Amino acid sequence: MDFAITFKGDISPERTVALAKQAEVGGFKYAWFFDSHVLWRDCYVMMALCMANTSTLKYGPLVTNPGVREWSVAASIFAALSVQSGNRFEVGLGRGDSSRRMLGKKPMTVANMVAFADAIRGMVRGDKVEYDDTEAEFPWANGYEMPVHIAAYGPKALKAAGEAGDGLVIQLADPGLVRYFSSQAIEAGEAAGRDMSNYQIMSAAPVWVGDMKKAREQTRWFPAMVGNHVADIVEKYGMDSPDIPQSFTAYIEGRKGYDYHEHADKDAEHLDFITEDIVDSFGILGPVEAHVEKIKELEAAGVTQFNIYLMCGEEERIVAEYAEHVIPHFQ
Amino acid sequence: MDFAITFKGDISPERTVALAKQAEVGGFKYAWFFDSHVLWRDCYVMMALCMANTSTLKYGPLVTNPGVREWSVAASIFAALSVQSGNRFEVGLGRGDSSRRMLGKKPMTVANMVAFADAIRGMVRGDKVEYDDTEAEFPWANGYEMPVHIAAYGPKALKAAGEAGDGLVIQLADPGLVRYFSSQAIEAGEAAGRDMSNYQIMSAAPVWVGDMKKAREQTRWFPAMVGNHVADIVEKYGMDSPDIPQSFTAYIEGRKGYDYHEHADKDAEHLDFITEDIVDSFGILGPVEAHVEKIKELEAAGVTQFNIYLMCGEEERIVAEYAEHVIPHFQ
Amino acid sequence: MDFAITFKGDISPERTVALAKQAEVGGFKYAWFFDSHVLWRDCYVMMALCMANTSTLKYGPLVTNPGVREWSVAASIFAALSVQSGNRFEVGLGRGDSSRRMLGKKPMTVANMVAFADAIRGMVRGDKVEYDDTEAEFPWANGYEMPVHIAAYGPKALKAAGEAGDGLVIQLADPGLVRYFSSQAIEAGEAAGRDMSNYQIMSAAPVWVGDMKKAREQTRWFPAMVGNHVADIVEKYGMDSPDIPQSFTAYIEGRKGYDYHEHADKDAEHLDFITEDIVDSFGILGPVEAHVEKIKELEAAGVTQFNIYLMCGEEERIVAEYAEHVIPHFQ
Amino acid sequence: MDFAITFKGDISPERTVALAKQAEVGGFKYAWFFDSHVLWRDCYVMMALCMANTSTLKYGPLVTNPGVREWSVAASIFAALSVQSGNRFEVGLGRGDSSRRMLGKKPMTVANMVAFADAIRGMVRGDKVEYDDTEAEFPWANGYEMPVHIAAYGPKALKAAGEAGDGLVIQLADPGLVRYFSSQAIEAGEAAGRDMSNYQIMSAAPVWVGDMKKAREQTRWFPAMVGNHVADIVEKYGMDSPDIPQSFTAYIEGRKGYDYHEHADKDAEHLDFITEDIVDSFGILGPVEAHVEKIKELEAAGVTQFNIYLMCGEEERIVAEYAEHVIPHFQ
Repeated sequence: MDFAITFKGDISPERTVALAKQAEVGGFKYAWFFDSHVLWRDCYVMMALCMANTSTLKYGPLVTNPGVREWSVAASIFAALSVQSGNRFEVGLGRGDSSRRMLGKKPMTVANMVAFADAIRGMVRGDKVEYDDTEAEFPWANGYEMPVHIAAYGPKALKAAGEAGDGLVIQLADPGLVRYFSSQAIEAGEAAGRDMSNYQIMSAAPVWVGDMKKAREQTRWFPAMVGNHVADIVEKYGMDSPDIPQSFTAYIEGRKGYDYHEHADKDAEHLDFITEDIVDSFGILGPVEAHVEKIKELEAAGVTQFNIYLMCGEEERIVAEYAEHVIPHFQ
Repeated sequence: MDFAITFKGDISPERTVALAKQAEVGGFKYAWFFDSHVLWRDCYVMMALCMANTSTLKYGPLVTNPGVREWSVAASIFAALSVQSGNRFEVGLGRGDSSRRMLGKKPMTVANMVAFADAIRGMVRGDKVEYDDTEAEFPWANGYEMPVHIAAYGPKALKAAGEAGDGLVIQLADPGLVRYFSSQAIEAGEAAGRDMSNYQIMSAAPVWVGDMKKAREQTRWFPAMVGNHVADIVEKYGMDSPDIPQSFTAYIEGRKGYDYHEHADKDAEHLDFITEDIVDSFGILGPVEAHVEKIKELEAAGVTQFNIYLMCGEEERIVAEYAEHVIPHFQ
Repeated sequence: MDFAITFKGDISPERTVALAKQAEVGGFKYAWFFDSHVLWRDCYVMMALCMANTSTLKYGPLVTNPGVREWSVAASIFAALSVQSGNRFEVGLGRGDSSRRMLGKKPMTVANMVAFADAIRGMVRGDKVEYDDTEAEFPWANGYEMPVHIAAYGPKALKAAGEAGDGLVIQLADPGLVRYFSSQAIEAGEAAGRDMSNYQIMSAAPVWVGDMKKAREQTRWFPAMVGNHVADIVEKYGMDSPDIPQSFTAYIEGRKGYDYHEHADKDAEHLDFITEDIVDSFGILGPVEAHVEKIKELEAAGVTQFNIYLMCGEEERIVAEYAEHVIPHFQ
Repeated sequence: MDFAITFKGDISPERTVALAKQAEVGGFKYAWFFDSHVLWRDCYVMMALCMANTSTLKYGPLVTNPGVREWSVAASIFAALSVQSGNRFEVGLGRGDSSRRMLGKKPMTVANMVAFADAIRGMVRGDKVEYDDTEAEFPWANGYEMPVHIAAYGPKALKAAGEAGDGLVIQLADPGLVRYFSSQAIEAGEAAGRDMSNYQIMSAAPVWVGDMKKAREQTRWFPAMVGNHVADIVEKYGMDSPDIPQSFTAYIEGRKGYDYHEHADKDAEHLDFITEDIVDSFGILGPVEAHVEKIKELEAAGVTQFNIYLMCGEEERIVAEYAEHVIPHFQ
């Protein structure tokens, strides 16, 4: 089990660097960044700064999308960060949620996302890549085979993640749902003839070590955020689709609007409809023992990387608790 | 007189950082980067790495353009680098030459460039900015008034640089031509009612300290590159336009094709038409005394920043010669 | 009230750097290091590494002594670290406890300590300084007026600290005892005609945020260590001296041997004689509210710097708790 | 052939770091520092700073001696720097010249130097080491087998270097003298039954790339400095000893006083007696071709590391010339 943290991008550069170093010496393997350039500072120049201050931690966007940067522009950033860091760079990829919506645009299609994954891997490797009516080749690429982890909840995206991704990103920490989603991706990959034995399954979620009441307050924004994706899926496949588990959709029935200006904000005003059950199941809450136990369940469900959404407050303490009391149980 | 270096982007990250540090301790004030993301590594993540290893040196693209990155994406990078570095970031801006042409596209219009300058300054400052059918506001902006230096040769661009720029970038080191171009920008600014007393004039050119024969070999690529811009201007305004000095256009009469894959490459094969006179006049060549003398002439012509295009070989020695023998004459 | 951490020197270089950065962004002003070069790694080259990775945090030994390094050798280190860091270096000074005893030697005299303080301040400043039969002058000194904080418990050392120190270091966090010791130093300084209005009073002690039972286990080593100094004082002045408060001496009556190989070690075997009262009074233990309250009392007793002996376990969490819940109450 | 630079310690910390980085990316393997703590800043905290800014360059004093720091104090610094840098630390050792003389003391004996070499290697490795009436053991040592290179000119010291050193340091670049000295060390080692096949021979000397007149001006201080050692040897063994080559001693006949305050200073006033022949033979001067040629001769004479005394001016240019024009001939 690898451990990771994810930065939203609202923490000062100095504090982000300090947290990255703390995580590295504490046994974490990855630091991911939300890629939503209007809401938060550009994440790539921040990764470059963190890379300069660490030596083993890997970095990447979680998630970027095909619709915000011209593809060769995106690939040039990815390849440059790979060269700068000794290939300590990977990509988390989705269809484009907040960063597109903040510019008044819709998420991209699954097919477009897959084409983008292939294009950026090719350009980073050094291939001549054609896309749209353009072709691009980086004479300076270093041949790196950059992993692309695809975020998915819906049937189509899960199939694509299994067929075209190096890993699957599941934004919640419910072992049952993780198994439900990951099995679809793995089956799709196997059906396509891929060897899925090294396929990566990431569970990404907020955590809180401590009192349950406070824990729920600090993490309730998360099911609300996931609710956006659920709403998209329900809109597309219907509330009663056999492809979508009831436990996943039921909670959004009470959902009203969602304000993207308060995206991933623990004090947002659109959180009313979330029940305690959902909060408890989507994240990991309570004393350190509860964290160890639930991550063991996630491991049994196939998870290879547990990724803390580090944006619920007391971030240094949370990293310290995991380094001291949780990660040692998985080594 | 401020001194600057410009990186093309083909030097390894480690060597780029070492050169930036050498330049900083040697008295240089700026390190600029070509922004041409297919030909060379993304320059912004490289700036972030250099910023992390220096404390006073300022950075920026020289030049970026309005047509490669969605405007809020560009502005988010600029604002993030400003926040990360304590506002050690400025922008050099043009209409888009190699980075656009490498994707098979034409440079943008002057009007578009000016609108972009306003938009990025606004977003970096923290304003709500409208452009196209979008609006964007960075809640995390720090209020920095980011200078934008506009690169221009042609009458329209020079007028725009004077009216809308914080400075003018002139890609050659001929004092007469510098005066010819800069006076147009300054007059345009004054005509628009601006106080031009702090207006910045940058002369950017390759240099070679040493033997003249080798000096010409190492810098002949530069007039060829400038020739692209001259050809554009001649095409637009005609060879005999009173607005264009003969000394500037004459040399391109023998020009044939230009291969952008060998852009700013001292060994390119499209260099035949360049005469010695042009090579000598566009850069600074010869013993250190000749450099001091010509920069004094540039200073007299109004130049406030002399910027070495650091891509002619023996880069560490060139920076050392300037730090030791040239810069002390201007302090 | 300034906040500080003190490293013992047993934490890996990477983790020490990460903790220093965490402390700096968390609002701490100083990072001190035990100077005991056999028990732990040389602290000065570690400070140099931490300085390179921070920008405002100040550093120094706590404490060094006059008897381990030839005086010009010590002063050259101090002056070099001052030059390297922009004068982010101060000295904590004592008569030599563990670092001397580990080499089978006794602590130095108070007079010797004062002469050393004058000599190192002089050499760091750039003066020609005579000591023993030697004189030394650093042609490269930068004129820095380096503060020297003197650690003292006994009457003679307290007098010297007031007369010759820029501050007093008191290794415990009992407000009554702090006031008892500091008043002696301040009175001695005033009697010598010094302006004591900017005199610094540091209270240095271990802390534990959390459950009291665990808190006592993690910090019980500290009164044992302080006991060495108490024993010295009692041996010199007698158990019933009116100059020594009973509360300070009573606890060592049950003391047996002390093994310097387990110096400042929370699992040492010489801890039996320490009562809960003493543990509670010498450090700060319990929930964050108790820490805020006791530091307010210390502030009322004249303390200007509270210094955490960061060697009781869960160091990252302790720094995080102070940054999040304690330091903000003093800003 | 490994290449090295040696810093005197008078260059600012920022510039020293920049030079170390430049040297590292330019192909140099070692950066040595004079250890003379009164004349120049303490070299060890400067090494720590350089280590933090480089990743492969090795560091060490050239030379330290047994008489300036208590042995466990010295060994704690060496072991701590080894731990901090991933064992990028070695020691150059002599009997104590300027750092002892500046405190009015004589160099130590050869026997004492050998005992020191054994003691520091033992303590750095983690052994319990006895010396004088003390014993010390670092519980935190990492087992590193630290090489000790011994500087020698006289018969006794050369014998000791061969018997007890991991390498020999010869402070001049005359191939004949290098062979003369190194053969004595190697024979002594073989006579003692050691396998000398990996024995290191370092030639350390100033260089100047450029005009011969200026080259002689910039490097004439060096034979003067070496003259101190020659004078010691001549005093001990007599001018006509068969053990000392005439070419080595002849030049000091005109020597008068030597002012240690101008040690290694190119503008010192005690340089009059040095002839051009000696200057040319002790360093490497002239165009880059002459450097390549002479280093080839040194290589043929058994030299494994050529070490530039980087203190003759234009240091950045000298490093650049070697990186560009000399080192590539030895790879």
